[in-house]
Amino acid sequence: MRIFSAAFILLCCLLGFAPSLQAQVDQLMPVPASMEIQAGRFQLQPSFTVSLRGADSPRLLPALQRALWRLDRRTGLRRGKSVQVSESAKTSWVVKTQESAKLELGEDESYSLQITPGQINLEAQTDLGALHGVETLLQLLSADSTGWYFPCVTIKDQPRFPWRGLLIDVCRHFMPMEVIKRNLDGMALVKMNVLHLHLSEDQGFRVESKKFPELTRLGSNGDYFTQDQIREIIEYANLRGIRVVPEFDIPGHATSWLVSHPELASAPGPYQIEKGFGVFDPTFDPSKEETYTFFQTFFTEMAALFPDAYLHIGGDENNGKQWDGNPKIQTFKKKNGLKDNHELQRYFNERIQKILTQNGKRMVGWDEILVEGISKDIVIQSWRGKEALAQAAKNGYQVMLSNGWYIDLCQPASYHYLNDPLPADLGLSEAEQKNVLGGEATMWAELVTPENVDTRIWPRTAAIAERLWSPAAVTSVNDMYRRLEGVSLRLEETGLTHLKNREMMLRRITNGQEIYPLASLLNYVEPLKIYQRHAQGIPYSTDLSLTRLPDVAIPDPKAVRDFNDLVDLYFTNPTPLGVKILTRELGNMERIHTQLTWQARQAPALLEILPMSEKLQNLARKGMEALNFIDHKTKPEAAWKQEALNTLAEAKKPVAESELAVILSIEKLIYRTLGP
Amino acid sequence: MRIFSAAFILLCCLLGFAPSLQAQVDQLMPVPASMEIQAGRFQLQPSFTVSLRGADSPRLLPALQRALWRLDRRTGLRRGKSVQVSESAKTSWVVKTQESAKLELGEDESYSLQITPGQINLEAQTDLGALHGVETLLQLLSADSTGWYFPCVTIKDQPRFPWRGLLIDVCRHFMPMEVIKRNLDGMALVKMNVLHLHLSEDQGFRVESKKFPELTRLGSNGDYFTQDQIREIIEYANLRGIRVVPEFDIPGHATSWLVSHPELASAPGPYQIEKGFGVFDPTFDPSKEETYTFFQTFFTEMAALFPDAYLHIGGDENNGKQWDGNPKIQTFKKKNGLKDNHELQRYFNERIQKILTQNGKRMVGWDEILVEGISKDIVIQSWRGKEALAQAAKNGYQVMLSNGWYIDLCQPASYHYLNDPLPADLGLSEAEQKNVLGGEATMWAELVTPENVDTRIWPRTAAIAERLWSPAAVTSVNDMYRRLEGVSLRLEETGLTHLKNREMMLRRITNGQEIYPLASLLNYVEPLKIYQRHAQGIPYSTDLSLTRLPDVAIPDPKAVRDFNDLVDLYFTNPTPLGVKILTRELGNMERIHTQLTWQARQAPALLEILPMSEKLQNLARKGMEALNFIDHKTKPEAAWKQEALNTLAEAKKPVAESELAVILSIEKLIYRTLGP
Repeated sequence: MRIFSAAFILLCCLLGFAPSLQAQVDQLMPVPASMEIQAGRFQLQPSFTVSLRGADSPRLLPALQRALWRLDRRTGLRRGKSVQVSESAKTSWVVKTQESAKLELGEDESYSLQITPGQINLEAQTDLGALHGVETLLQLLSADSTGWYFPCVTIKDQPRFPWRGLLIDVCRHFMPMEVIKRNLDGMALVKMNVLHLHLSEDQGFRVESKKFPELTRLGSNGDYFTQDQIREIIEYANLRGIRVVPEFDIPGHATSWLVSHPELASAPGPYQIEKGFGVFDPTFDPSKEETYTFFQTFFTEMAALFPDAYLHIGGDENNGKQWDGNPKIQTFKKKNGLKDNHELQRYFNERIQKILTQNGKRMVGWDEILVEGISKDIVIQSWRGKEALAQAAKNGYQVMLSNGWYIDLCQPASYHYLNDPLPADLGLSEAEQKNVLGGEATMWAELVTPENVDTRIWPRTAAIAERLWSPAAVTSVNDMYRRLEGVSLRLEETGLTHLKNREMMLRRITNGQEIYPLASLLNYVEPLKIYQRHAQGIPYSTDLSLTRLPDVAIPDPKAVRDFNDLVDLYFTNPTPLGVKILTRELGNMERIHTQLTWQARQAPALLEILPMSEKLQNLARKGMEALNFIDHKTKPEAAWKQEALNTLAEAKKPVAESELAVILSIEKLIYRTLGP
Repeated sequence: MRIFSAAFILLCCLLGFAPSLQAQVDQLMPVPASMEIQAGRFQLQPSFTVSLRGADSPRLLPALQRALWRLDRRTGLRRGKSVQVSESAKTSWVVKTQESAKLELGEDESYSLQITPGQINLEAQTDLGALHGVETLLQLLSADSTGWYFPCVTIKDQPRFPWRGLLIDVCRHFMPMEVIKRNLDGMALVKMNVLHLHLSEDQGFRVESKKFPELTRLGSNGDYFTQDQIREIIEYANLRGIRVVPEFDIPGHATSWLVSHPELASAPGPYQIEKGFGVFDPTFDPSKEETYTFFQTFFTEMAALFPDAYLHIGGDENNGKQWDGNPKIQTFKKKNGLKDNHELQRYFNERIQKILTQNGKRMVGWDEILVEGISKDIVIQSWRGKEALAQAAKNGYQVMLSNGWYIDLCQPASYHYLNDPLPADLGLSEAEQKNVLGGEATMWAELVTPENVDTRIWPRTAAIAERLWSPAAVTSVNDMYRRLEGVSLRLEETGLTHLKNREMMLRRITNGQEIYPLASLLNYVEPLKIYQRHAQGIPYSTDLSLTRLPDVAIPDPKAVRDFNDLVDLYFTNPTPLGVKILTRELGNMERIHTQLTWQARQAPALLEILPMSEKLQNLARKGMEALNFIDHKTKPEAAWKQEALNTLAEAKKPVAESELAVILSIEKLIYRTLGP
C-alpha cells in the first residue's frame, strides 16, 4: 500500500537504499543464532533438484513440495515439483533428518544449513528443525541481473525459547478456516510454533461439542468450527510444526456458555449472547456440583479432540459480582473456609485441574489463576507484566509472556520488538530462567474482522517471532524495520491479505474512485492506540461494520519512518538536495486534502476523513514554511510561531478514531525555527 | 489495478466522465426488463429498517441480513443488522413474497421493486425473485455530497432465459471451497442461477465417492471435495438461488477414473493421472457389462448427493482411438449392428441415461451426445455453435449455449456480450425457441489457478449474465463497458479477488519493488487469446506455476478503451488540449520501459517482459511523432513512414505469451499521417 512519490524513488536511488539490492543474507527474519557468510553463490537453475534422507517424515515431504512451488511461483523457473526420497541421490539440495519429532513443547528445533556454489545441505535432528531450515533457505533467495541465487552461508540455528505463539480470538469476531490456515502459513514462515485458539467468550462459543451441541446451537450465531474442521486445523498446523492449544475461558467471560446452560450460572438467567465489549458479570457457579459434572464431560470430550498436552482455561477478569450477590455461594465460601473470591476461584481451578489431569492435560491460565498454594504444574500466561512473570518463575511455575505483545492495540513494531521475556535485570537463576517458556502475541478481536485481521497481525508479529527465536543481543530497531518490509512481501505470498485487502477497503471507501489520494493520506495516519478508540463516542459492538479509516489504517506506517529519516538526514547534513526532497514530500502531503475533498462529493464515507487530510495540509504548509526559514537562516515572526504551535496542537487531536503519525518530524522542523 | 495518470484524471474532469457522478440508475447490470425513473430519492439513514412479509423462506431472511451488512460495510452507517419478520411492521424497506420456491429450472424469478422517497417495496411471487430484487436494490445505492440514497424508480423485472450458468472446471487445476463460495456470491450479484461443476477429467477426479474411495485416493493427488464439502457448496448455492449441476465427463476425458479402474478402460492399463493438456485416448469400454455395473453404483450414489434434476455426463472429444484399437470392441459393434463410433457412443449414452432416469435425473451432455435417434429428454450444451444448437432445438431437444462464452480464452467482453443464444435470424418457431434454455460461461482451468481464476471470470462474466437475463434489445457495447467497471467493484465486495490478487502478483514479479511501472504496462497488454498461448513453446502441464505476465494480464483492459476514445475524440475535434492529453498519455507509455529496465536488475522475472515494454516505447514514440505531423499539418519523409510501419509490425509480435492491446489507435495516428 506504500505509494512512492517520484521524489522518494529518486531519493532512494541517490541514497542507495533501494530495497534488497544486496543478497538476502541480511534480510533473514528471525535472525539465526549463528551465520557465517562465505564468498560465492549457488545459482538457481531450472535443473534444481531436492532429495530427502534419513527419517521418514509426514511433515517434510509435503513441506519440501510446497517449498518448490513457492520458489517456482516467485522465480517462474518452471521446473517439475517432485522430491526424491533417497539416501544417495545426487541433487542440488539435500535434506537430512534423524527423526520425525512428536509435536511437543521442548522438542529439538535446531538445524544447520550450508550453501556452497555446488550444493545446499540442510541437516537437522528432527523434521521440526528441518522445517525451520526450509523457511530460512526460502528467505535467502536473492536476485540480481544474473538471475536467482542463494548466497553461500553456513548457518547453525536454534530457538531461544520453546514456546513461540500467536493467540487468535475467534470469539468476538469469528475467524473462518481460511483465516486460520493462512495465518498458520505465516507463523511457519517466521518459525512460530504455537497457535493458541481462544474458543469461548461472552460474545460466542466457537467449537462444536457432540456432548453439548446446544453450546454452539444457542451460543454461536451459527459461526463456529465443527470438530472435523478443528481436526483439519490441527493437521494443517502439525504439518507445519505448529502446536494447537485451545482456550476455554472460565469461570468468567462465560456468557455464551450460559445462554444454553443458565442453570450453571452464579445468577439466574436467562442469558443472551453478549454484543458489547468489556468485562461482564456472567460467571459459572463454583459451588454447584453440577458445574463440575458438566466440565468433567466437556473437558473429557475436548481433551480427546485437541491432542496437545496443554489446555488453557483462561481464568481472567472474573469481576466476582455474581459471586458476591449469591447467598448460596457466600455460604459455600464460609463452609469451605474460602476467605475471598481468589480462594474460591482457586477452589474452582483445582477442581478443573483435576479433570484436566485425569485427561492427561497440563492446565494453562492467565495471571489470575496463580494464587497461593495452587499446584506447580500449571502454566501461567502473563498479560499483567514481567514482574508477575518473574515472581511466578521464581516460585517454580512455568510462565510465558503476553504483556507487551497485544497486537490488537496497534502499537509500533519497535515497542513489541524490544519487549524481552527474559531481560538480564530480571535476576533469575539459570534454573528459574528455564521456567520462562517464551510467549505469545495476542490478536484480540473486538475491532477486527476476517477482512482486516491480517493487517493487525502482520508484519508486526514477525518482530515478536524474532524476539522469541533470535539471540537476546539482536535488538537493533532500525535493522528490524529494514528487514520487516521484505518479510511482509514473503508473508503475502503465503496467501495473507494484510497488503491486498487494504487496497480493496480503500476502493470501497472512495466508492470506486482512484485510491491514490487516500492511500497517500494513510501513509501518514495511524489508528488510535491502546484502548483510546473505545473512548471516541462510538459504542462498539458485534453489530458494527469495521470498514472505516481506523480499520484500514495500520500501526507505524513505513512512509513516516522514511520521512523521519529524511528530516534527520537533512539536519545532520543540510544540503540543497535535502531541501528539495523535503519540500516535495511536504508538498505531496499538502496536496492530498484537495484531491480528497473533490472525491468526497461522490464518496460520503470520505466525509469524516476530510478533517484529517486538512490537518495534514496545514501541518505540511507550516513544515514547508519552517524549512524555508531554516534554509534561509531567517527567524519567523512571533505571529507565525503562534500559528505554528496552534497548527501542531490541532494536528495532534484524533479524527475518525485515527491520528496523524507524521507530526514528530514536522514538529522538529518548526521547533528548529524557534530555537535560540 | 487501473492506474490513472494525472493527465487522465484531469481529462476525466474536463470531459466530465468521472465515474458514477450520477445516480446508479444507469449502472444496473443486468439491465432490468422494464424500469421507470421517477423524480426524487430515498435518502439512506442509520434508522433504515427492513421487514419480511408473506411466505416463510429459508433463503430470504439470511439474504436480507447479508444485504444489510453489505450496505453497512459500504456506507459505514453503523446500524443494527436485524430484519423484522412481520406482516404489519412499518419499516423503510418491505419485502413480500408468495412462496418459497423449489430450486428448479423454470421457477418464477420475477420481481417488482418500487422506490419512493418514503418507502421501498420489493414484491415477488417466489423468494428466488426476491433475491434478484435485493441485488438490484444494492446496485442502486447512490451517493453524492448529501450522502447515500436510492433513486426513485419502478422496476418490473424477469429473466429472458431460465438457465444462466457458470461452469467451473475444478479438475485441470483444483479450485478449493473458498473459490467456489466467492464465485457463487459473484453469480448471485449478477443474477446467474446455475453453477456447473466439471468434476472429472484426465487431470483429476474431484469428488469423494464412498462406494469407490479409490477414485480420489488414486485419481486426485489429494485435491478433491469431500461429500460434506459438496453438501456445503450445494447449501451455500441454494441460499443464493443457484442450482448446482455436476458433470462427470464420460466415456472420454476419463484418465483419472482409469488410474484406479484400468479394468474398465478400452485399452490395457496401467494409467497415470494426466499432467498435460489436450485430448487424450483413455476411454471407458462400452462393450463391457462391468462398465455399466460400475456406473449403476456410482451414479446412484451421486444422484443422491446432488439434488438437482439435471446431471451432466460430458460426452465430448472421445477420439475413438482406443475403441478402434480394441478387437473385442469391434466385434461388439458388429454384433450389435453399431456401424460407427458415434452409434457405439449412442449405445453407451443410452445405457447411462437409463441409469440416470432410474435415479430421477435428466441427462445433459455436450454436442456429441446428440446422435440420430437418441431420446428427446436429454439436454444439449453446445460448444460447437448456434447452427448445431438451432438444429437440435428444431428437433425438439432442450439446448443451451456455451460456444462464444469460453471465458478461459481471454477474448473481450464485447465479443461474449454480443453472443446471443437466440438471434432473430435463427428462424425458430415460438415453440422451438422455448427449447433454448439459455447458456453457460465456461471457465476451463488449463491456465488458471485459485490465485488468478477470478481475473478470468470477472468482470467479463457479468456481461454474459446480462445477455442471459436482459431483453434481447439491450446490445450497446459502450454502455456495457461503462457499467462493467462499477459492477466489478461491487463484485470485489463479495470477496472476489479479481482486482486485489493482480496487485499481489505484480509485487511478486517485481520482487517487492514499486509496482506502478509494471501496472502501467499492464494497462496496455493482453494475454494471448484463443489457444495461441499453447503455441509459444512452453509445454504447459499441471507442473507449471502460472505467475508470469500472461497470467496477470487481463483481456481488453479499460485503459486501452479509454485511450482509443481519446484518439477518436481528437480526430472528431482536433483541439490543442487533445494534442496535449494524447502526448502525455503516449509519454507515459514511452517512459515505462526505462523504469522496468532499472527494476529488472533486482527482478529476474521482469527480464522476459522488457521486450514488451520496449515495443511499447517505440510504438509510443512513433505515435507522438505522428501526432506532431498531424498537429502541424506536415507530411513525414518516406523513411519515417517505413520506420513507422516496421515499428507497427514489430509491436504486433507476441512477447512472453502476451501482446500489446493499444496498437489500433496508434496505428490510426500513423496511418493518418500517410493518408492522401
